[in-house]
Amino acid sequence: MANGGPEIEQLIQLLARLPGLGPRSARRAVLHLIKKKDGLMVPLAAALDRAVAAVRTCEICGNVDTSSPCSICSDPRRIEAGLLVVVEDVADLWALERAGAGAVLYHVLGGVLSPLDGVGPDDLSIDALINRASVAKEVVLAVNATVEGQTTAHYITDRLAGTGVKVTRLAHGVPVGGELDYLDEGTLTQALKARTAI
Amino acid sequence: MANGGPEIEQLIQLLARLPGLGPRSARRAVLHLIKKKDGLMVPLAAALDRAVAAVRTCEICGNVDTSSPCSICSDPRRIEAGLLVVVEDVADLWALERAGAGAVLYHVLGGVLSPLDGVGPDDLSIDALINRASVAKEVVLAVNATVEGQTTAHYITDRLAGTGVKVTRLAHGVPVGGELDYLDEGTLTQALKARTAI
Repeated sequence: MANGGPEIEQLIQLLARLPGLGPRSARRAVLHLIKKKDGLMVPLAAALDRAVAAVRTCEICGNVDTSSPCSICSDPRRIEAGLLVVVEDVADLWALERAGAGAVLYHVLGGVLSPLDGVGPDDLSIDALINRASVAKEVVLAVNATVEGQTTAHYITDRLAGTGVKVTRLAHGVPVGGELDYLDEGTLTQALKARTAI
Repeated sequence: MANGGPEIEQLIQLLARLPGLGPRSARRAVLHLIKKKDGLMVPLAAALDRAVAAVRTCEICGNVDTSSPCSICSDPRRIEAGLLVVVEDVADLWALERAGAGAVLYHVLGGVLSPLDGVGPDDLSIDALINRASVAKEVVLAVNATVEGQTTAHYITDRLAGTGVKVTRLAHGVPVGGELDYLDEGTLTQALKARTAI
């Protein structure tokens, strides 16, 4: 198969392993890169090299950044506020930051408890969380509203029970812009229970 | 926005310019890369660097390869056969090669005639095609079955009319595995006209 030599073939195979890209779209992406060699391929290669050299995982919270402790954990305003938001994954941390979460610190668990997949408490950074919680004013459990996420939240709540730290979770309710007709019954029930005065 | 520093932000923006990836999926891809730093990010960076250094556009046919003339144009068996397949784009060339096109040479036009978009004959490698056609036994027009593709095919046929070279096009018909019910009428009419004995 003379699809442009081993260098191109290998690039296709590596790109195909990215989420959202398959073999076919990876091939299209590589052709696009080759067509825009100076404008896109060369800058992308340089950006990847720079990122490989610069990226660190924060030793405190588990965020990825170019320094450790990361810029969030080093922010005095956030440390002062003492609000510790627990997330499953770095992607959730980024989503909350995009939403303008404010002066909060994060703790990335690195997953959720899942006995079926063999993920126990020791596989997540839960011990580190318990340590950090002792100096926090409040721990917000911002785990996903899945069965595993809620199991993990229960486990963490139990572990924190003796410490006296305030533990909260994200509000359930109707998504902003969401239509009632398309929402599941669990969400609607929770939204009705937690109704607020206008 | 503390989404991991300028190196990561720039990588997201460049990846978001690939076809099939938007800002959201580029962010997910970058997180995936960072998580699999040694297994995926480092090899991808190296593969991109190698590809940037190695990739050439073939001076004869317009294919991309790591040598020019490309491995297809240098293949004596293909040169001997004298069958010149004209395609719009390198992606079409790769598709035909994947399909096992056999001992054929290619000519990549680099697009199709499109007066509305200001693409005339001088913007495509048509003059080079006419030159190459003089030593070919047959020219197969494997352009897309779109209006622009067919216009381009007509134009090339006219240009080749005086040269005596045999000009053919890909067969129209029912795609292998296709269901009649879902096919357009034009395809069905052509498939019926060009029916073959079993």
